[in-house]
Amino acid sequence: MVGEIISVGTELLLGQIVNTNSAYISQKLAELGIDVYFQSCVGDNSGRLGYVLRQALSRSDLVILTGGLGPTDDDLTVSTVAEVLGRKLICSATVLSDIEQYFSRIGRRPSENNKKQAMVIEDCRVIRNAIGTAPGQIVEDGGKIVVLLPGVPDEMKRMMETGVVPYLKEVGGASQSTIRSKVLRFVGIGESLLASQIEDLLAGQSNPTIAPLAQDGLVDLRITAKAPDVATAEQMISEVAREIRTRFGALVYGEDGEQLAQVVGRLLVERGFSLATAESCTGGLIGKLITDVPGSSRYFQGGVVAYSNESKSKLLGVPSQILSQYGAVSRQTAAAMAIGVKRLFGSSVAVSVTGLAGPDGGTASKPVGLVFIAVISDRSLSVGRFIFNGNREQVRRKTAITALNLLRMALMDGSSAVG
Amino acid sequence: MVGEIISVGTELLLGQIVNTNSAYISQKLAELGIDVYFQSCVGDNSGRLGYVLRQALSRSDLVILTGGLGPTDDDLTVSTVAEVLGRKLICSATVLSDIEQYFSRIGRRPSENNKKQAMVIEDCRVIRNAIGTAPGQIVEDGGKIVVLLPGVPDEMKRMMETGVVPYLKEVGGASQSTIRSKVLRFVGIGESLLASQIEDLLAGQSNPTIAPLAQDGLVDLRITAKAPDVATAEQMISEVAREIRTRFGALVYGEDGEQLAQVVGRLLVERGFSLATAESCTGGLIGKLITDVPGSSRYFQGGVVAYSNESKSKLLGVPSQILSQYGAVSRQTAAAMAIGVKRLFGSSVAVSVTGLAGPDGGTASKPVGLVFIAVISDRSLSVGRFIFNGNREQVRRKTAITALNLLRMALMDGSSAVG
Repeated sequence: MVGEIISVGTELLLGQIVNTNSAYISQKLAELGIDVYFQSCVGDNSGRLGYVLRQALSRSDLVILTGGLGPTDDDLTVSTVAEVLGRKLICSATVLSDIEQYFSRIGRRPSENNKKQAMVIEDCRVIRNAIGTAPGQIVEDGGKIVVLLPGVPDEMKRMMETGVVPYLKEVGGASQSTIRSKVLRFVGIGESLLASQIEDLLAGQSNPTIAPLAQDGLVDLRITAKAPDVATAEQMISEVAREIRTRFGALVYGEDGEQLAQVVGRLLVERGFSLATAESCTGGLIGKLITDVPGSSRYFQGGVVAYSNESKSKLLGVPSQILSQYGAVSRQTAAAMAIGVKRLFGSSVAVSVTGLAGPDGGTASKPVGLVFIAVISDRSLSVGRFIFNGNREQVRRKTAITALNLLRMALMDGSSAVG
Repeated sequence: MVGEIISVGTELLLGQIVNTNSAYISQKLAELGIDVYFQSCVGDNSGRLGYVLRQALSRSDLVILTGGLGPTDDDLTVSTVAEVLGRKLICSATVLSDIEQYFSRIGRRPSENNKKQAMVIEDCRVIRNAIGTAPGQIVEDGGKIVVLLPGVPDEMKRMMETGVVPYLKEVGGASQSTIRSKVLRFVGIGESLLASQIEDLLAGQSNPTIAPLAQDGLVDLRITAKAPDVATAEQMISEVAREIRTRFGALVYGEDGEQLAQVVGRLLVERGFSLATAESCTGGLIGKLITDVPGSSRYFQGGVVAYSNESKSKLLGVPSQILSQYGAVSRQTAAAMAIGVKRLFGSSVAVSVTGLAGPDGGTASKPVGLVFIAVISDRSLSVGRFIFNGNREQVRRKTAITALNLLRMALMDGSSAVG
């Protein structure tokens, strides 16, 4: 089976948003062994959309469209697909009821425009929308499959996972060979250095392939194998993954969807530890990342964002003499903040950060990007000094990631930093 | 002039990377008044690339290709374009020299494959690569313009800015008319309701166009006008903007790149106020958004993330009797948190949030998504009750946005909530 993806929306052609939906859907299709040879973006224009759709139907078995399912007049995917396929539109009572419930939950009424979203292509399979208003639709037509999905990423992803992928497996669309991927997640090493350490693996690659993807402070390596069956594909991947893990050790913090904060949470739960945070330049970002993890209330007691010097003294008990002698951005202040917040919350462990996120505030001796991070437990206290490159957002993000990583390393290393 | 963008690379079709180049180039073309009607992605396959290129040349005046300029055997953009245009490839001495210098700078030698990157299309205009090896190329052919750019984003951007955009202005490709945009930023109103209030403007639109773009809790309206000169375009935009602002008043918090937290910061500075935050379910996200703004240390003292009930009592002085009688997620607890953090920091104003972000923890009387937000000043205290739809991340994001907005409204409204 050959698939094709059409993303609908003039905002895409104007470059106002980046097309992440296409990449996501392509990955899902690749995992099912469905090849994708073409992806297109077209605007909110019925004529051009109809043209691109007809072309896609002429060369692909499966066409997935995202976008243009909203309630406004610009949204014309449903009517255009219906026109191209020569189908009627009917009102789905289920969807209409879903829409009314969605609005009543937030104490409002749906507009007429929202009700239009209950019009679906006759004989389609409806994919209900649990977090929005537009339904997804799967239409079988003359041996082809046409799928309509919302452009809103979260809504589209949920429908792919709960509706489209099961459907494709059901109709045997998944190919004879299978494609499997595993992502290894790295922290504390940059992309080029990482790549240089696996130059031999990258140069020789064909199947499996190894693709690096870097974000601030984090690097992922995606290993993808194509094989006649799942077991073989997974074995091919494991061999490569094992070799890579051997080279990098604890620089690999997790796999696939694992978040660094999730790994930290698991280590805390395993040890029965509680955690508190003292943040300055990160402003609450570390607490936010920790609480991204559902169930983090099991171990996270909370934290203090001590943005002003005064609040560092008042709330965390950082001695004013330390602040005046060494400054807010110093090893000593980071240590005092960690001591203070651990005592304040009575937590098993705590992490603190103080630094210069920029763009202003830097000096020759204390440049923008300078950050101190402390980790404290019942048994020890250690402070690290860092200089992070980048703009304000990058410095703050790298600081938060590094703080979580130092906490992770300390929790893993039972014999030294943290008991 | 009509432009079209072709992104080359099998990794795009496998969904291994997100196509950011397309959005970037489209934006640049829009700024030049060049319309884009189609964007495509195709793999490292000469046959399919040739097909897509021929189609693009048949319907567009300017075709920009990115990707496939690397040194490996997969990289076939140059040879495919040459074949479609019926042109020879020649070795550019300048580029060859650039490549040799690039490698000698890092203490290496170029491979034979790298030298292949010096082969360019006869009579093209070369765009030298200051930070990589592959040159860009601009080819004029039978009234059409074909541009070849590297896929590496930084290299592509630099070539667009230093080579392609100046070239397009030079050949008068930039249309006689100019395109200008202004974005109005809304908070506290959903996209469908917003659209229904400007149905007349949306229905009648042709020039300027009005395009809504929604994120969690926020909606932007982009007004785009095409006119013979900048002044006329801006005047057309102002008229529409004025009408829209008249209808929505304070639901518009800013324009273009303004962030909600930035607007709040400006209001605090104007009044000489300081701010502290007490967060529960948002985990630090509100503090993070406030401190996204450079210079926020002028007004933001800090905050408390009181994730556990105990820390709400211990740090914020929320009476245990309130917690046991009304629960952590209640109007009374939100109020007590606000009172507590204002006293703790000695701030002029404070905002607190307590709620159920999910996915677990909801009950019939207190469902997931239920959030209380309190705003306190020297003169008054008010608490709002909300139910936010969506997953954990969406509930937390909407909560943070709403908290900032309530603070903003309170600061603007000198006569009631906040003095």
